[in-house]
Amino acid sequence: MKNKNDLIAVYRDGLLHDTLPFWINNGIDREHGGFLLCLDRDGTVIDTDKYVWIQARFTWLLATMYNTVEPRAEWLELAKHGIDFIRKHAFDKDGRMFFRLTRTGEPLVKRRYLFSESFAVIALAAYARAAKDEVAVQQALDIFKMMLKYHTTPGLLPPKMITDTRQQKGLAMIMILITTARSLSEVTDDPICQETINKCIRELESDFLNHEHKCVMETVGPNGEFLDHFDGRLLNPGHAIEAGWFVLHEARIGKGDTEALTKLGCKIIDWSWELGWDKKYGGLFYFRDAKGLPSSEYWHDMKFWWPHNEAIIATLLAYKLTGDEKYCKWHGTVHDWAYSHFPDHEHGEWFGYLHRDGSLSSRLKGNQWKGPFHLPRMQWYCWKLLENFGDARD
Amino acid sequence: MKNKNDLIAVYRDGLLHDTLPFWINNGIDREHGGFLLCLDRDGTVIDTDKYVWIQARFTWLLATMYNTVEPRAEWLELAKHGIDFIRKHAFDKDGRMFFRLTRTGEPLVKRRYLFSESFAVIALAAYARAAKDEVAVQQALDIFKMMLKYHTTPGLLPPKMITDTRQQKGLAMIMILITTARSLSEVTDDPICQETINKCIRELESDFLNHEHKCVMETVGPNGEFLDHFDGRLLNPGHAIEAGWFVLHEARIGKGDTEALTKLGCKIIDWSWELGWDKKYGGLFYFRDAKGLPSSEYWHDMKFWWPHNEAIIATLLAYKLTGDEKYCKWHGTVHDWAYSHFPDHEHGEWFGYLHRDGSLSSRLKGNQWKGPFHLPRMQWYCWKLLENFGDARD
Repeated sequence: MKNKNDLIAVYRDGLLHDTLPFWINNGIDREHGGFLLCLDRDGTVIDTDKYVWIQARFTWLLATMYNTVEPRAEWLELAKHGIDFIRKHAFDKDGRMFFRLTRTGEPLVKRRYLFSESFAVIALAAYARAAKDEVAVQQALDIFKMMLKYHTTPGLLPPKMITDTRQQKGLAMIMILITTARSLSEVTDDPICQETINKCIRELESDFLNHEHKCVMETVGPNGEFLDHFDGRLLNPGHAIEAGWFVLHEARIGKGDTEALTKLGCKIIDWSWELGWDKKYGGLFYFRDAKGLPSSEYWHDMKFWWPHNEAIIATLLAYKLTGDEKYCKWHGTVHDWAYSHFPDHEHGEWFGYLHRDGSLSSRLKGNQWKGPFHLPRMQWYCWKLLENFGDARD
Repeated sequence: MKNKNDLIAVYRDGLLHDTLPFWINNGIDREHGGFLLCLDRDGTVIDTDKYVWIQARFTWLLATMYNTVEPRAEWLELAKHGIDFIRKHAFDKDGRMFFRLTRTGEPLVKRRYLFSESFAVIALAAYARAAKDEVAVQQALDIFKMMLKYHTTPGLLPPKMITDTRQQKGLAMIMILITTARSLSEVTDDPICQETINKCIRELESDFLNHEHKCVMETVGPNGEFLDHFDGRLLNPGHAIEAGWFVLHEARIGKGDTEALTKLGCKIIDWSWELGWDKKYGGLFYFRDAKGLPSSEYWHDMKFWWPHNEAIIATLLAYKLTGDEKYCKWHGTVHDWAYSHFPDHEHGEWFGYLHRDGSLSSRLKGNQWKGPFHLPRMQWYCWKLLENFGDARD
């Protein structure tokens, strides 16, 4: 492993002196509240629309910095700035949340997914802890329970398929429920959190792990059936790796059967690394096909920033938990590839979108998908993980 | 210009001896009807789902071959094979059409767009002419009128935006109405066809041409307002070039003010070529931003097959109508780039998806977007256009 203190410096200093200042200096909307996060490489705002899940992600980050790094007044003030905007503008009358708002907060788009809600839960939970705001705890819990209701009641959300001919379910909701419940559990003792985590990990293992093709499916039938179509075969190795470390994190904090959790998380990471790592150019492919057929998604072989963030966390955490040198090597491989391709040395932060060969595809820093989340979360998580790397494997 | 007869041979022989055989040999579903068009590079079926618009496009092609090339019994039989499947499975109870069906015809997805309907109209119209089927004429006309009703009645289709805060309209429907009406006009005297064409061309010129940025917008406000957001600024040069030749085609067949139509079509092509042609690697970019900012669509700089098909038609037609050597040169440029990058010399037909630098991104031949349409339509249109290139500019 690289020198531990050097690695800590890369993550910590990157977070404190590069990533956070980039977003704080460029992304606060003092006029209309909330954040302006659709940014060109130099931080210029190139779209004023506000995407609720990204507003919430930044809010979570700011509150988490306050909670776990140091109680800097600016971070709490900015987290409140995010919460205020979300509370004021992001909720529809039915309790569900919008996806896209104008700069001044008028709703534009509401989606059939629960991602606005899930990130609002972690934002509110982190803010509740920072501000000691009991109302925020209750609000987070209420939204989480509403998510569960929508998730478990067929037909409540408009379905993608108009008939029951081919029912399907996605990995994303399972994953998001695990990490959302874990965040929420930091501010409430409600047993729904651990129950949800247990249930989702069981479902992940039983329905989404495909032992024949040695991969984690993104989409399966209601009982884990393999759907032999473009969308059913579509794999997202970075996404699966993220799921892998969500599982390992449960082992790390000692919740459940840590041995079984470690084994499961590592299997997910092993499979996903094997099929996701580009042996020709390096980096993680965005999509693969479970049967090795061509994917029908255009950007299947591009290299996005976030799968690399997730793989840096996952490999480091797997190494921490198992001591297996394989993970140490993989961590070095993905760390080095990512740090030699994604950082913008002129204006700071990371580029998000590279071609397969690692050349730059787009200079943008923020849009409806990319914001202050995967990169700073990786920097924060790995920094804190390394600080506790006090054993013989350092 | 290249030797006319050589060019004719490229297009004609490509159509008759490569493109058509590829789809006919691999794509006919004799068991369940309709076509299996999700194909790997060698023609292997890799997804059995049936996308209605692609089923209809192949049907249109087969009937058009019968109508305009030669009355080959196989083409008419296969066109009927397509029409039968569409009639049996593609219609919802409300008269609208599905987007995606299973192999046996069960509906899976219905979209808020009218593209299934528009391609069903041209398929039915071409089939009506081939089979002398008056019922198909009436059916095509009924669907077309339903499309107009949905297009002009606010709220009939579920909107993308949930509020009226930012109303918008797209270029795609305007274009599709022009070309659909023109196809339909070949089998009916109903004045709705020419009226629709006139209205759409007026709207295209008044609302979608942006003289400040010298580009054709894909999305504007209800009165052509510039929407300064990622989606509002998004340009699709190949799509605009396709609109350009739809307008030039009206001039070619002498409908309306041919001088004004030629001027409009050429302006669209000029602007779109200027901003769409990649001066570094050649080929047409998929998306550009009206203000030169980064696009938020991942595949913005990829080279897709179909914009090149459309540009080959557009430049040849512009040359035919104007005699301007610029178009002859552009035609040679895009023809040469396309023919040196897209054809699959081993298994026939064209690849669909290249990286910006022209290297292959995906080997697939058919999916929910790519099928037997843009390439064979280009080969057919250019062949037939060149056969009539009897003037001094040959």
